[in-house]
Amino acid sequence: MKLQFKLEKKDTKTRGRIGTIIYNGREYKTPMFMPVGTNATVKTLSPEELKEIGSGIILANTYHLWLRPGEDIVAAAGGLHKFMNYDGPILTDSGGFQVFSLARPKDISEEGVLFKNHLNGDKLFLTPEKSIAIQNKLDSDIAMSFDECPPATADYEYLKQSIERTIRWAERGKKVHNNPNQMLFGIVQGGPHYDLRKFSALETVKIGFDGYAVGGVANDHESKEDMYKAFEYSTEFLPDEKLRYAMGIGEPIDLIEGVIRGIDLFDCVSPTRLARHGHAHTWHGKINVKNNKYKDMFKPIEEECNCYACKHYTLAYIRHLIVANETFGARLLSIHNIYFLHQLMAKIRENLESHTLEEFRDKFYQDYYGEK
Amino acid sequence: MKLQFKLEKKDTKTRGRIGTIIYNGREYKTPMFMPVGTNATVKTLSPEELKEIGSGIILANTYHLWLRPGEDIVAAAGGLHKFMNYDGPILTDSGGFQVFSLARPKDISEEGVLFKNHLNGDKLFLTPEKSIAIQNKLDSDIAMSFDECPPATADYEYLKQSIERTIRWAERGKKVHNNPNQMLFGIVQGGPHYDLRKFSALETVKIGFDGYAVGGVANDHESKEDMYKAFEYSTEFLPDEKLRYAMGIGEPIDLIEGVIRGIDLFDCVSPTRLARHGHAHTWHGKINVKNNKYKDMFKPIEEECNCYACKHYTLAYIRHLIVANETFGARLLSIHNIYFLHQLMAKIRENLESHTLEEFRDKFYQDYYGEK
Repeated sequence: MKLQFKLEKKDTKTRGRIGTIIYNGREYKTPMFMPVGTNATVKTLSPEELKEIGSGIILANTYHLWLRPGEDIVAAAGGLHKFMNYDGPILTDSGGFQVFSLARPKDISEEGVLFKNHLNGDKLFLTPEKSIAIQNKLDSDIAMSFDECPPATADYEYLKQSIERTIRWAERGKKVHNNPNQMLFGIVQGGPHYDLRKFSALETVKIGFDGYAVGGVANDHESKEDMYKAFEYSTEFLPDEKLRYAMGIGEPIDLIEGVIRGIDLFDCVSPTRLARHGHAHTWHGKINVKNNKYKDMFKPIEEECNCYACKHYTLAYIRHLIVANETFGARLLSIHNIYFLHQLMAKIRENLESHTLEEFRDKFYQDYYGEK
Repeated sequence: MKLQFKLEKKDTKTRGRIGTIIYNGREYKTPMFMPVGTNATVKTLSPEELKEIGSGIILANTYHLWLRPGEDIVAAAGGLHKFMNYDGPILTDSGGFQVFSLARPKDISEEGVLFKNHLNGDKLFLTPEKSIAIQNKLDSDIAMSFDECPPATADYEYLKQSIERTIRWAERGKKVHNNPNQMLFGIVQGGPHYDLRKFSALETVKIGFDGYAVGGVANDHESKEDMYKAFEYSTEFLPDEKLRYAMGIGEPIDLIEGVIRGIDLFDCVSPTRLARHGHAHTWHGKINVKNNKYKDMFKPIEEECNCYACKHYTLAYIRHLIVANETFGARLLSIHNIYFLHQLMAKIRENLESHTLEEFRDKFYQDYYGEK
């Protein structure tokens, strides 16, 4: 495996952990936020820009790359790193999340999932073996097991059966996994139910993976409480020395609450999606840059921010670009928003060091959301 | 005036000229191609990228900036350079080209032009005085006189009257021009008619401007022959020591033919527009990167090209980005296409030095268009 993880420290007041990822001779700190590059490109950004803003692992989507350009093209290019010119670590998801959103309940069987692809409506069948085979060819550094992603609000009986099948799928995937450079992660499901999360975690750990994810969060309109329970009930049964990854999480408060509950890695499309819609993170909340009041605001999004966008451009200019539908605007906001989340993770790590993460959480909540 | 022009050499075999533009302590060579940044951004690119690919003067559109964000916002930002963070030279057009495409013939009067703006249909009135006042506020380094742009195919009598009015408009504009940092250029019209071009050039030179443009080219489907006549008949009557600019020209062969006929500056949206449509310039013609045959072509657009896109990315990857509608693809192709035109201008200058520009033209034509 090209990627190594070393747990450095455990917080004494929360389940928070500080670790180091060693990759290609470089070190990256965890907890970490991972930007998403669905189509082997983090929307609007170059690999150099990602490095400049402090990105480590980035995520690419197996489902999208399977369909276009196809895993064989990426393999022939020499794998994802060479294809997209990114020499930092890359994680691929299993494709499950997209596939389940396209499939009808009756199209999910023990063997796999039948669905119509979103590009041309062709019927496709995805199985654990196929998902792993695609990811092996993409040659990411971390591959994910193929799991069913039932909504947190699914009924208990369905969740239980789904988890049991996901465990069988995890075993099938592990059996065919065949890329010595690549880690394979298992995924814990179980909604907000303690006994289901416990069962899923213990059984998945029994199979044995290089890291573990908390799945079934942020794919439905579950309550924050249920999301945090999912973190808490899952990490309780995960081994200390392995990475823990909460899938699809990018809302600032959820990153903090996730770390408090023992999560190391997070990913989300939100910073780049917010950017395309003209929104920017600030330490005092999200702002809509298109707002009229910014049209003659000749200062950066945040005075104290050191990102490229804030060092060289004013809110007035970025607003103009967004209003005029110029992609350089989305690029500047993407830089700022991802940089913001990386800075947030840095602050989280500092507060883990000083055992003040809960105080930081309370202060951040008040500053960012304007409430206690 | 912040921008200085020094004519260095005149070719002995053609009307081609080599010159130097001195600006902000930096030197730029002419003949030069100028990328277009309509909304105070060269689409998809950063100012740093423009500098890296060798851009000098860039163009911004007065009409677009007048409407959005408005010249007062740009002035309050400290002018275009500060607003868009570009410290190289900037040229603004007069807005005439856009306005005439939106106006009906009966809405053109001695006073100015009435038209409906393309954003919300509001009626607006643009005059020579207004155009210059807006450009003064934008604080570009070169402002253009407000001229009527009749198609080259307009009838002779109309062209004659239009030229006479354009000369009166040029005088009115010069009278109100009030920005000591800014050059003001006059514009020669007259379609493909020798006597009209001569009249327009001599009368415009009589008023006295800091440089001269050849207008009324590339705004209609005129023949190449007529376009080249317009260059030739105009530059014949223009003073050696002043810059000559052919507006809206970006097709490679036209750049060479323009230089042969005494032009120093060219601008066009074509390199960035081609990029957004997935096309790339190569020394053997334009290629459509979306073409299926590139899907597994793991080499750069051009092996010998030193642009960022060619140094780091394959045709297969860029094709994938364009097909997946990812803006990073348009960005890579924009970098390549503008770099290509800058390289073409460098080759043109080399061939001016060695008095071989016509031989270069013939060779280039064969290589690029596949014909003699």
